Amino acid sequence: MTAMTLDALPTPALLLDLARVRRNAGRMSELARAADVALRPHAKTHKCVELARLQVEAGAHGLTVSTLAEARAFGAAGFCDLTYAVPVEPGKFAEVIRLHEAGICLGVVTADPEVVEGLRRAAAGSGVAVPVHVEIDCGDARTGLAPDDPDAIPLCQHIANALPLRFAGLLTHAGHSYDAQEPAARVRLAEDERLAVVSLAERLRQDGVPVDVVSVGSTPTVKAAASFAGVTEARPGNYLLSDLFQATLGTCDVDDCAVSVLAAVVDCSRTRRSVVLDAGAIALSKDRGPVRWDARAGYGRVLDLDGVDLGLRVANVSQEHGEVRDVPDRWLDVLRPGARVRVLVNHACLTVAQHDAFHVLDDGQFVDRWTIHRGWH
Amino acid sequence: MTAMTLDALPTPALLLDLARVRRNAGRMSELARAADVALRPHAKTHKCVELARLQVEAGAHGLTVSTLAEARAFGAAGFCDLTYAVPVEPGKFAEVIRLHEAGICLGVVTADPEVVEGLRRAAAGSGVAVPVHVEIDCGDARTGLAPDDPDAIPLCQHIANALPLRFAGLLTHAGHSYDAQEPAARVRLAEDERLAVVSLAERLRQDGVPVDVVSVGSTPTVKAAASFAGVTEARPGNYLLSDLFQATLGTCDVDDCAVSVLAAVVDCSRTRRSVVLDAGAIALSKDRGPVRWDARAGYGRVLDLDGVDLGLRVANVSQEHGEVRDVPDRWLDVLRPGARVRVLVNHACLTVAQHDAFHVLDDGQFVDRWTIHRGWH
Repeated sequence: MTAMTLDALPTPALLLDLARVRRNAGRMSELARAADVALRPHAKTHKCVELARLQVEAGAHGLTVSTLAEARAFGAAGFCDLTYAVPVEPGKFAEVIRLHEAGICLGVVTADPEVVEGLRRAAAGSGVAVPVHVEIDCGDARTGLAPDDPDAIPLCQHIANALPLRFAGLLTHAGHSYDAQEPAARVRLAEDERLAVVSLAERLRQDGVPVDVVSVGSTPTVKAAASFAGVTEARPGNYLLSDLFQATLGTCDVDDCAVSVLAAVVDCSRTRRSVVLDAGAIALSKDRGPVRWDARAGYGRVLDLDGVDLGLRVANVSQEHGEVRDVPDRWLDVLRPGARVRVLVNHACLTVAQHDAFHVLDDGQFVDRWTIHRGWH
Repeated sequence: MTAMTLDALPTPALLLDLARVRRNAGRMSELARAADVALRPHAKTHKCVELARLQVEAGAHGLTVSTLAEARAFGAAGFCDLTYAVPVEPGKFAEVIRLHEAGICLGVVTADPEVVEGLRRAAAGSGVAVPVHVEIDCGDARTGLAPDDPDAIPLCQHIANALPLRFAGLLTHAGHSYDAQEPAARVRLAEDERLAVVSLAERLRQDGVPVDVVSVGSTPTVKAAASFAGVTEARPGNYLLSDLFQATLGTCDVDDCAVSVLAAVVDCSRTRRSVVLDAGAIALSKDRGPVRWDARAGYGRVLDLDGVDLGLRVANVSQEHGEVRDVPDRWLDVLRPGARVRVLVNHACLTVAQHDAFHVLDDGQFVDRWTIHRGWH
């Protein structure tokens, strides 16, 4: 692999810029240290053991995961402090308990007393102390209980008494921060996110329920937050790789984006003024990214192999075709079949999940190939 | 696997209704026989050896593929007559030749004389007679030469003389048929597609260039075509599985759709009137399908385990969450965490490519697990 160059690698291929990843990891770790919150990065963004190691070396405490397959892969690699941040449901209880029995402490999330009761019964036999977080809806309106929901405190109290389960604390995610292009709006949402869990944690403690974890998420709000008072951990994920959505939102620079797809030109037409790449809906994903703020966004920006933006976008995708349209003459002369480009992607998490490995570039050289742990089971 | 039921399978999981697949395969084979064209199905839709066998048993002649990984997988399973229908580029020449040397006849497609010359030089050493198709643009405006492009006949003549390559014929794809919801419009596009290649084939033969293959594609036009006169083969793909896009377009019935995603409810909120599934942007794909004709389309229809439409849609997806909104009371009572549903998908080709296997249902029973050959290399 070290002898591989961008000219020799089969296309399409996922590229990772290691210098940018290190810089992104360092900045977030510094932010977390300054805010005195534990950083528990969401590993759904990369699904990659080597990148998780890099995050932990930069100061992360534990990981967040989105699938049991991620939990198993990270657990097998020695990461034994994980939070599964998609609400757990009965079909997954047996595997959660099996992971605990294998020495992997996998915290779970729910907002449902029936789920708690079912998990308690399932865990009773082996006696594993599964940490259970109650999910709080801070305005995203996807999952969880509102902080002032009359069921919230009784649910936490119920978990605190549902041995062998352990009430871990409160968890929320301001996913609606991705709708907020105004920096001031993100500051407000970050404060909403903080208050949603901190206020409930205070009421629980007043009622005698200990709350260890007060956890917030979302890269945009963690970067925008004016205060983390009362928050114990943050779970941003995308910050490590960044992408065009974050850059258009204003939460990173385009130069922070660490993931691109190496693609080859397969068709070039002066008549249509188009260039077609071998990276389409599968290699890039069909995420339209920042289209609401950038009508030209398409499915990614076209860069040369050195990362210089050619001013072209992937305007349309079919399964294995990525169409670049309105191509100026100077590029029609150059982007002939066999020419290679990099496509900077809209949504790193979704593009990564389309590939089985990162091809790691450090200082322009291939240094490694890192496995992406896809799937669910 | 045979003991598995829809209640025991880990979620999310891709389900295949074998009876519907057999019916879809039989109908298309019958259409091709009646039209006296060879059926070369596009296997990008399923990437699955067992489904390709089923197509061949129903009467298909050879397969179309969209990646060299598919070519390798089908070749290894004994399918030695393949057409790689994405334009070939120099970075893939070595692998194309290697496949030929391994006994797999992989036809390629291009519209570019430089590609032909490069492939000729690359093939000269081993002398493999790679069949080369010239791609014709019948109005889709994605790839290929217009049938009246002055470069078209010289290119075909050049290939016919570029030993060891072999000029196989002409290939086109009316991808723009997916924009045509009017049946009469699809009939017209099918005729445009036919004439684009048949007219050029006739001119080539008049010039003394033999044209073996005159190939058309696209499920909507193959189903709509009034005539296949002069056409030798058809390459529809989606017909085998069908999906909500095809059903909304009017090229199949909803009851023909053979692919769904088994999902579990992870969150149910009476306050939000929402149900959240563990099938999101990765398990379903982010293809918005027929949204231009069905504003409510979302990311798929929610069925019960018997396949009965509950009248609900997946309105929004994030990475591992599928949100069903505006859920009536009667379903909020039933779709509690752990309940299971099936999501009928917008675009079967893209959803299939998100999974590593089909879970095959025959008469409501699991009969097998069939591997999906993803990736590119």
